[in-house]
Amino acid sequence: MAEHPLYLGFDIGGTEIRTALGHGTTIAASRAATWPAERAPADEVQFVADLALALMRDTGLAEQVRAVGVALAALTDREGTVVDWPNRPSWRGLRFRPLLAERLALPTIVEDDANAAALAEWGLGAGRGFRHVAVITVGTGIGAGLILDGALVHGRHGWAGELGHLVMQPDGPLCACGHRGCLQLLASGRALERVAAARGLDGSRAVTAAAALGQEWAVAALVESARWLGLAAANVVNLLDLEAVVIGGGLSALDDPWWGALQTTFEANLLTPDHRQVALLRTTLPQGAGVLGALWLAQQLDQEHSSRQEVRR
Amino acid sequence: MAEHPLYLGFDIGGTEIRTALGHGTTIAASRAATWPAERAPADEVQFVADLALALMRDTGLAEQVRAVGVALAALTDREGTVVDWPNRPSWRGLRFRPLLAERLALPTIVEDDANAAALAEWGLGAGRGFRHVAVITVGTGIGAGLILDGALVHGRHGWAGELGHLVMQPDGPLCACGHRGCLQLLASGRALERVAAARGLDGSRAVTAAAALGQEWAVAALVESARWLGLAAANVVNLLDLEAVVIGGGLSALDDPWWGALQTTFEANLLTPDHRQVALLRTTLPQGAGVLGALWLAQQLDQEHSSRQEVRR
Repeated sequence: MAEHPLYLGFDIGGTEIRTALGHGTTIAASRAATWPAERAPADEVQFVADLALALMRDTGLAEQVRAVGVALAALTDREGTVVDWPNRPSWRGLRFRPLLAERLALPTIVEDDANAAALAEWGLGAGRGFRHVAVITVGTGIGAGLILDGALVHGRHGWAGELGHLVMQPDGPLCACGHRGCLQLLASGRALERVAAARGLDGSRAVTAAAALGQEWAVAALVESARWLGLAAANVVNLLDLEAVVIGGGLSALDDPWWGALQTTFEANLLTPDHRQVALLRTTLPQGAGVLGALWLAQQLDQEHSSRQEVRR
Repeated sequence: MAEHPLYLGFDIGGTEIRTALGHGTTIAASRAATWPAERAPADEVQFVADLALALMRDTGLAEQVRAVGVALAALTDREGTVVDWPNRPSWRGLRFRPLLAERLALPTIVEDDANAAALAEWGLGAGRGFRHVAVITVGTGIGAGLILDGALVHGRHGWAGELGHLVMQPDGPLCACGHRGCLQLLASGRALERVAAARGLDGSRAVTAAAALGQEWAVAALVESARWLGLAAANVVNLLDLEAVVIGGGLSALDDPWWGALQTTFEANLLTPDHRQVALLRTTLPQGAGVLGALWLAQQLDQEHSSRQEVRR
């Protein structure tokens, strides 16, 4: 095998699919909307496969690709069958991993997108060098990946890190999950969108723009959402005795008052002077922690395959 | 070494010290108040050592004892020096482990009491057979030990599992730790004591007695404290994707309305149908999870020593 092995990575979110081909770093990448048109789930899997096939064809590197990693914004079981995806109810029960593996004829691994992002931040980004770190992705929703003692925490089903549905306010607003006062309702991009919508404005950017112009309602909304996030992050640090928290996702680019309120609330709620030395860091991979994590997972999968074959020889 | 090795275990809490001598199970045990009289910390360590020396003398088994385990209701560093013990401020900075080891002339290991209890529940009690379980000890305070993927989570300093100071109500009552609305303030035995005191009654038993007589204020207090605990337990299960939660400590013996409210709130706040199969269990070691965990830790320490000596030979 003279040629350098390459991998395919996907980050499939509610609004966008990122595809990358690479090894450690990205050699070629593409982006597409999720999904351009409503179709049957099996055709949507084909759409995903086609994105990879196009990338391999355009680069002429198909021969070198050894494995596929997918960061997926859905709960899956250990086989890669979709258990739940609120954004895409038709995918419930879809045997996503085996179908994609079959269509690309490559070994394929599927991981929760927040976990994939955590692996990338920990291996390549702001979380490098820590043994106990939470990577919190704050975008439309909120997810997290937890690294404890130098390993990603999976839990029983692979669903550890579901930070977005921590109940922060048991008498708070009703979440789509059926509970009240979930962190995601209080601190995500969608929370800001709702504030904007209540004023006849469109999208979370309307809030940040108004805050930049000094409008009090917008500053207050940013501060309140950052406080909820800071409190949740401190609770996780106190519970798990972490060294660092990395904030990624769309909202992580926000400056003050958001970042300042986040940091102040986080630090104020840490337990002891030693806990207070916990680092609160911004992602250093703002453009693609998920897809880089997916590439990394594909590489791990390939190495496991190779070493198992070594043993058989 | 013809004789069966034995171990010493201590569970040192805010009000009581339990001492046990055994191997797996307890052969002999004693209980003493923490501490009968105010003295210098070094003398208090001697008091602890004397409890063990008395037990060894009375049983005539001193020769067989190989190691000492201590479950301590304080934060310690990796050397066993006390970092913080709100109940015993004079112990801050006390080199507890080395001092006790020296006085007993035995290898000694110190662990957080909630972690020790978790190890015992997981190895011998209600948590047996699970790979992902939280053991929550609800007594005067609230602590927890977390078993993930079949191993106790320590975190950076060994302080993982600090459930009592999860902030549940950021605008709630002020806790001794400096934060507001800590779980411990809302759901521990001390929370019930405060309810009793406000009615001129003494101790958490006054609340359970009044509830048994059907007094509404007492039923409401038990239900509210159980709900906070159930919510915190569900949040931990959702965050870490656990299989089971074991409830230990003094309050775990309470029946309805406490247990019923705990169970209802816990189940209502689990995330998915699969999460809803999470077991909520009562301790099967109500009399001494901490001291059994301490014995187990002493045995582990001894086995590590022995295997290291094997390697040297």
